[in-house]
Parts: sequence; structure tokens; C-alpha cells
Amino acid sequence: MRVLVIYAHPLADSFAAALHRAVVEALGEAGHEVDDCDLYAMGFDPVMTAAERRAHNTPHPDLSAVEHHVARLRGADALVLCFPVWWYGMPAILKGYFDRVWVNGVAFHLRAGGKIEPGLHRLKKLWVVCTYGAPWWLIKLVLRDPVRGVIHTGIRGLCTRHVKSRIFALYGIEAKTRVETARFLEKVRRGFARF
Amino acid sequence: MRVLVIYAHPLADSFAAALHRAVVEALGEAGHEVDDCDLYAMGFDPVMTAAERRAHNTPHPDLSAVEHHVARLRGADALVLCFPVWWYGMPAILKGYFDRVWVNGVAFHLRAGGKIEPGLHRLKKLWVVCTYGAPWWLIKLVLRDPVRGVIHTGIRGLCTRHVKSRIFALYGIEAKTRVETARFLEKVRRGFARF
Repeated sequence: MRVLVIYAHPLADSFAAALHRAVVEALGEAGHEVDDCDLYAMGFDPVMTAAERRAHNTPHPDLSAVEHHVARLRGADALVLCFPVWWYGMPAILKGYFDRVWVNGVAFHLRAGGKIEPGLHRLKKLWVVCTYGAPWWLIKLVLRDPVRGVIHTGIRGLCTRHVKSRIFALYGIEAKTRVETARFLEKVRRGFARF
Repeated sequence: MRVLVIYAHPLADSFAAALHRAVVEALGEAGHEVDDCDLYAMGFDPVMTAAERRAHNTPHPDLSAVEHHVARLRGADALVLCFPVWWYGMPAILKGYFDRVWVNGVAFHLRAGGKIEPGLHRLKKLWVVCTYGAPWWLIKLVLRDPVRGVIHTGIRGLCTRHVKSRIFALYGIEAKTRVETARFLEKVRRGFARF
């Protein structure tokens, strides 16, 4: 499969970077074609422009600045998101990737009357690897897991009906021991070896 | 009161812009001192830098690039957020305002052992004005309102215990008539006149 990996963290020596490397290596070893998209490394600008906003929700979205991202997304059989959760959501650079690239005419089609049809029929798998500073009970019981909700409902519901998704999440990362983070890294590596 | 208004939309002729103007006018007429922060107009860069990330969660956060935003936040008695909800969350430019400005040492204090103490004791009020493309049932029943959860739990729980919050939300904006949007605008204006 052609797997688009979207990664968002500024530091090469971070745990997120280690997770990203494990994902890319395991996918490659399993024989997949990896399209590795490191948003920080490429200096992705996440701010939707005025021109893009004006063309938003029209039949002619302005994709001029994000054309290669659109092509990579359309060419993907599977998608992997790898990021740390900051302020209970995606880092701004990743949030803006969705704002600018996952628009009407690409990710979904907004029909007359407000009906929405999926736009990413080729996508068969969506796997997410993320780390939280907050403990699991705050995310799951109090906040009811906003990242999971957005990814499941948004991507699965809007863009592609038949995608199989899986989320690898490490909660309370600041309080974890080296052994615990190493165990999570290994779990991710083994998981992606069977992607 | 000194009210910091954080606004995020690229178009001056948008409904979000009309809401922003109504908020600023009503606050001014009610005698408040308005510190109007238009993130798009000032070209705010929402991408947390490598240096900022490295200093994150240390006793010495790197605030060099966002010092004036930190000062404005610390000087505020009340906060207003005015934005459209894109992809079930804040626009990237606003998400990154939280990522970069609302950090340890400013919005909260991360103590040894992982305990978190509020950092914004001066904040007494938090009002939010937002618009959704999605209908209310999807946001509230399916997604369980991720924006509300993040704002209530994150800001109220982490940064200031005694803040009074109110959210003005217009759902399913694409399907609303002019009369309905005008009614919402008027509701916001009347609300902020009694801020």
C-alpha cells in the first residue's frame, strides 16, 4: 500500500520523533511504499489564506498553494498521523494541514442542500499515533476524547466510509518511566509491522 | 474591565468579522477597555518553534517571540474568543496562539510531581463566540462538543478556577437564513452590552 505519513513535531530528539521513525521503518520493512510528510521539516504554513477562505465551500476551492499536498493525499491508500497532543488537540501546524488541504472538493464534496459526500474513496486505513501530557481519565472521562472524536467522526464520517482506523495513544507522558515509553514505542513498532 | 478579545478569521466581510465588530463595539459602549487582538491582521505565526518546544515544561519557557502576547494576557481581566470552528476545532492560527502563548509559566504552573496550578488569577470572565458549519446534533450528541470541552476544562480547569464562562454558538451556519444569522448577531451584541 501507498501510505501517507503526516508527522508534526519540531524536535528530532523528541519521543514523537522516535515514534515517527519507528512507524516509517516498520512500514518500509513490511513492504509498503511510504510517503513521509514531515510538516515541520518542510516548513508547512498552517494559516488558511484569505483567498482560500473566500473560495472555501464553493465548487472551485483555491488549492494553488497546497496542490502537492492534495496530490499526495489523493494518491494514498492509507494515512498515518503521528503527533503530540497540545492543548487537547493537534499542534497548529497539523490542524492547519486539515484546514487548508482537507477541503471541500478534496476530502469531501458539499452538494446542494448541504449534503456531504466522501471524497477520499481510495483511503482504506487510518492509523494514529499520539502522546498526551494529560492523564487518560481527564481525556476520556472528562473531555470525552476530543482528538478521537474528531478523527473518527470527521475523517471516517465525512471523507471515506470504509476506512479501518486504530489509535495508539500514550497518556500522561510526563509521568512515564523510560521503561514505559520504550514499551509503548515497541507496541507501535510491532503494530505497524503488521499494518 | 480590561477585556482581551482574540479574533481569528481572514476575511473582513465574513460573518465572523461582523460578530467581532459587534463584540468590540458593545464592550466599548459598556465602558470596558478593549484590547483587540486580530491574529490574522497582525500576521500571527501559530507554529511553535523548536526552541520554544525545547524550553516547554521547564522552569524557563522561551517567550521571546510572544512576549507582548503574554503581557496582554497577563493584563486582562476578561477574555473573549471569536472564531469560526473549522474541522471541529479552532482555526490553526488560534490553536497555535494557545500552543505558543498559553504555556507553563504563563497560563499555568507545572509543579514537581506533575501538579498543575493556575497561572491566570486575574481572569474573571471568559466568553466565546463561535460558528459551526456542522449542525448542533453532530457537535453535541456525536462529537460531544470538543470545543466546549477544551475551553471549559482546559482554560477553566487549568488556568483560573473562578472564571465565569459563556458560549454563544451558531450551528449549521451554511443552512441559516439572513434573518437567523442577524438574530444571532443581535443576541451576541445584546449579550456583550451586559458583559
